[in-house]
Amino acid sequence: MSFKKSIAKYFDDEKGNAKGEALLEYFIAVLILINVLAIILESYKSIYTSYKSLFQLLELFTIIVFSIEYIIRIWVSDLIYPHLSPTKARLKYALSFMGIVDLASILPFYLPFIVTLDLRIIRLLRLFRLLRVLKLNRNFKSLAVIRSVIIKTKNEILVSAILVFILLIIASTLMFYIENKAQPEAFENIGQALWWAVATLTTVGYGDIYPITGLGKIMSAFIALLGIGFVALPTGIISSAYIEEIRSQKKTEKCICPHCNKEIIE
Amino acid sequence: MSFKKSIAKYFDDEKGNAKGEALLEYFIAVLILINVLAIILESYKSIYTSYKSLFQLLELFTIIVFSIEYIIRIWVSDLIYPHLSPTKARLKYALSFMGIVDLASILPFYLPFIVTLDLRIIRLLRLFRLLRVLKLNRNFKSLAVIRSVIIKTKNEILVSAILVFILLIIASTLMFYIENKAQPEAFENIGQALWWAVATLTTVGYGDIYPITGLGKIMSAFIALLGIGFVALPTGIISSAYIEEIRSQKKTEKCICPHCNKEIIE
Amino acid sequence: MSFKKSIAKYFDDEKGNAKGEALLEYFIAVLILINVLAIILESYKSIYTSYKSLFQLLELFTIIVFSIEYIIRIWVSDLIYPHLSPTKARLKYALSFMGIVDLASILPFYLPFIVTLDLRIIRLLRLFRLLRVLKLNRNFKSLAVIRSVIIKTKNEILVSAILVFILLIIASTLMFYIENKAQPEAFENIGQALWWAVATLTTVGYGDIYPITGLGKIMSAFIALLGIGFVALPTGIISSAYIEEIRSQKKTEKCICPHCNKEIIE
Amino acid sequence: MSFKKSIAKYFDDEKGNAKGEALLEYFIAVLILINVLAIILESYKSIYTSYKSLFQLLELFTIIVFSIEYIIRIWVSDLIYPHLSPTKARLKYALSFMGIVDLASILPFYLPFIVTLDLRIIRLLRLFRLLRVLKLNRNFKSLAVIRSVIIKTKNEILVSAILVFILLIIASTLMFYIENKAQPEAFENIGQALWWAVATLTTVGYGDIYPITGLGKIMSAFIALLGIGFVALPTGIISSAYIEEIRSQKKTEKCICPHCNKEIIE
Repeated sequence: MSFKKSIAKYFDDEKGNAKGEALLEYFIAVLILINVLAIILESYKSIYTSYKSLFQLLELFTIIVFSIEYIIRIWVSDLIYPHLSPTKARLKYALSFMGIVDLASILPFYLPFIVTLDLRIIRLLRLFRLLRVLKLNRNFKSLAVIRSVIIKTKNEILVSAILVFILLIIASTLMFYIENKAQPEAFENIGQALWWAVATLTTVGYGDIYPITGLGKIMSAFIALLGIGFVALPTGIISSAYIEEIRSQKKTEKCICPHCNKEIIE
Repeated sequence: MSFKKSIAKYFDDEKGNAKGEALLEYFIAVLILINVLAIILESYKSIYTSYKSLFQLLELFTIIVFSIEYIIRIWVSDLIYPHLSPTKARLKYALSFMGIVDLASILPFYLPFIVTLDLRIIRLLRLFRLLRVLKLNRNFKSLAVIRSVIIKTKNEILVSAILVFILLIIASTLMFYIENKAQPEAFENIGQALWWAVATLTTVGYGDIYPITGLGKIMSAFIALLGIGFVALPTGIISSAYIEEIRSQKKTEKCICPHCNKEIIE
Repeated sequence: MSFKKSIAKYFDDEKGNAKGEALLEYFIAVLILINVLAIILESYKSIYTSYKSLFQLLELFTIIVFSIEYIIRIWVSDLIYPHLSPTKARLKYALSFMGIVDLASILPFYLPFIVTLDLRIIRLLRLFRLLRVLKLNRNFKSLAVIRSVIIKTKNEILVSAILVFILLIIASTLMFYIENKAQPEAFENIGQALWWAVATLTTVGYGDIYPITGLGKIMSAFIALLGIGFVALPTGIISSAYIEEIRSQKKTEKCICPHCNKEIIE
Repeated sequence: MSFKKSIAKYFDDEKGNAKGEALLEYFIAVLILINVLAIILESYKSIYTSYKSLFQLLELFTIIVFSIEYIIRIWVSDLIYPHLSPTKARLKYALSFMGIVDLASILPFYLPFIVTLDLRIIRLLRLFRLLRVLKLNRNFKSLAVIRSVIIKTKNEILVSAILVFILLIIASTLMFYIENKAQPEAFENIGQALWWAVATLTTVGYGDIYPITGLGKIMSAFIALLGIGFVALPTGIISSAYIEEIRSQKKTEKCICPHCNKEIIE
């Protein structure tokens, strides 16, 4: 049991690891990064043909390590969630987002006869294992703050997103009727106009599609200027939540007057 | 009367609906979304010709539902604004922004003999009905906060907009005199230069128009760098208003005077 | 004297005007806007040739009104700055930024025999008269807040600008050595590379110049990502100053407990 | 000793200089700026061939001044860090970032027979001397605030950067599989797709590479909209840190306990 406990410590995603304990996490993080690098390099045809056997070796090694890791994680999950029954704890891990990602990044190897899909697409799931890199010791607290801010601003961000969506729909429909006659190919349908609207509102502006009529340019200028406002809105929301988060963390410490030892409520 | 009241509840834009009551709102929201999708799909010629009758059926169904909804909204508006006389309450709804949008999205159907305008332009007004989607229960409070922030920062945003306008005018007039000789077609007049100025200040940068002379490039670099400041200004304004808004909501919690220990209502 | 005082009221830039008094300011603001519109329209050759006499008439009318305005402003400036001697008050206005702009926008008309320069360039100074539009009653307080924020953050913004400048120099020099061999024409010298660096850091990205080598692309990606940080820095500075400004305005009101009438220092 | 002290004052990077003392700093700052200008101008072939001897003269003068400056800095560093032994103080300066930059910008001249590398690359290090410009008296306090904010937000910015990195990897891998068939040359490998992903997420959008398939456009729109969020995150983090920094500076002003009226030192 004590042995199991000391292993569980290395696989506890719920709380950060002490510095010495993170060694294993670092090893897995590095292996994930090497796998990501391999996926990128494999996409270069010349590299792939030259080092094919090396990629296959890495794949085999990765599958073995990730499989052992998955089995251990299942095994120790009753210690990670001690308030749950062992079966429930195991199910909780297996059905969590990271649990599914962990399984999905090894499963294709064991089911080649079943899966007739394009294997590459399933292997892409391995990219999500990158999220484990975030859980390394140093980043743990910062990640928790960012996560808390995102959760708190969820509703406001959603409303902003709906507002952006409505603006995109209205702008692209108008633009389609304005530019369709002048550029029947570029603004062929509202779908194309939506592509223009996104590129303009987000200020990406690839330059593959843009208005040429006077009215279209005025419309486009208006959307681009509104784009500034739509950057300002979520930024303001997140800034504000951030400030509140940091302040509330400070306020949990009681403030006591060093002279009369009474608590001060500010 | 009790029956009318229970119906009114479903159409009250002034306050959010309780969860169970929002069913009808969801039905209308979905119908609005389907209509928007139809407008987009109709713009694809091949889809329009293949499913013409389906689009016409949807149009008919939409007109019937929206007409019934409009009549009900007129009927119950005296309960929504109980402090007004029934006639005034009905006028208030009919002349409100959403009331006009509601009417405009059904009117063209009933007046085909009068309206000789392009029908499509009037049907576009139906897009504004998308704003109803925002009023769904979950988003109601967040929307109120965003709205309150926008109203409070109205003046500062206006001043920022005037500053941007002045900068755009000065930059584009200068740029016209700088680039006109080198690119007589691209910078044909100040209108064209304004189009460049907007694309640069908002950092969209389509790439259809840009300076080629040395002086023009220095000018352009200066405007683009100022663009960062002009993003910062409204963002700062909105962030600040956001923080004040959230703090003022919290301050409604009681506050105690440190001298006499009584509660202060600010 | 009382007549002079009532006129002075209309030309007082130091404090905002009462609503009724702003009529004259509005008239001048509208005339400035018409002049700006005329400068834009004159740049369209076809419009200029068709309405040449109309533009000349507007020019004459503008010169008359602006000249009278200038004389009055000189005349009443001793009432605007009552703490100065009349001569000093007049000099203060005449040598202020707006005073020079006011003079420069009428002077060219009176000195045609002296000025052999391109008249258009001097007429451009008239664009700066647009700044008067900002002084209209409604915007006065918001403008003051924005101005105060900009003045307070002057030093931090300057440091940010120097940091951006250093980054631009280093990035463009490196990029010149990286890309010069692959694209000897696009990256012909460091000046060209600076043009690329500004377009990338500000995220404008016209697309007239971009790296094609692998190393150049990595460098470019790095600069573009840093660009996000360089937007964040001034935004954070301005947001923070904004929040302090609004809070300090609130704090000037003393806070008194309604129960014991003592002041509360929070 | 007193003479050495008065010289040390001019070379103290740890605290800002009094106004009168900054003269020497300004002289060096101007010389650095002239050197940077020379590096830029030398890259123009026509200018370089015309003024070759002038550039060489400047190089010689610069080396002499920078060498003297380096020797003085080594000499006085025991006064700058009085708490260290003279040897340690000298090593501290010599091994500091600015110390290495100072040495690197003169060393190549003395070691021409050893260094067979491209001299230009080493001369580029001189650009980092630009950072000295930041230490001029006026900017000193603002720079300290910005530096403190960056140090405090280091961890959150790192987590944001990792999140951006993960998003870029996932987006570009997906995009490669989506667009590779339609544009085998533009999206030749995941490296190319990464280049697209950076240009899109940072909203630079050069326009040299963009999706043409429907699915690719939807993906691209999604990434561009997420880009707005990824600008908002670091902006919020930095704003929040900025506000805390400025407030904590104000809090050094005394704070009085409302219970016993004694001052509290936090």
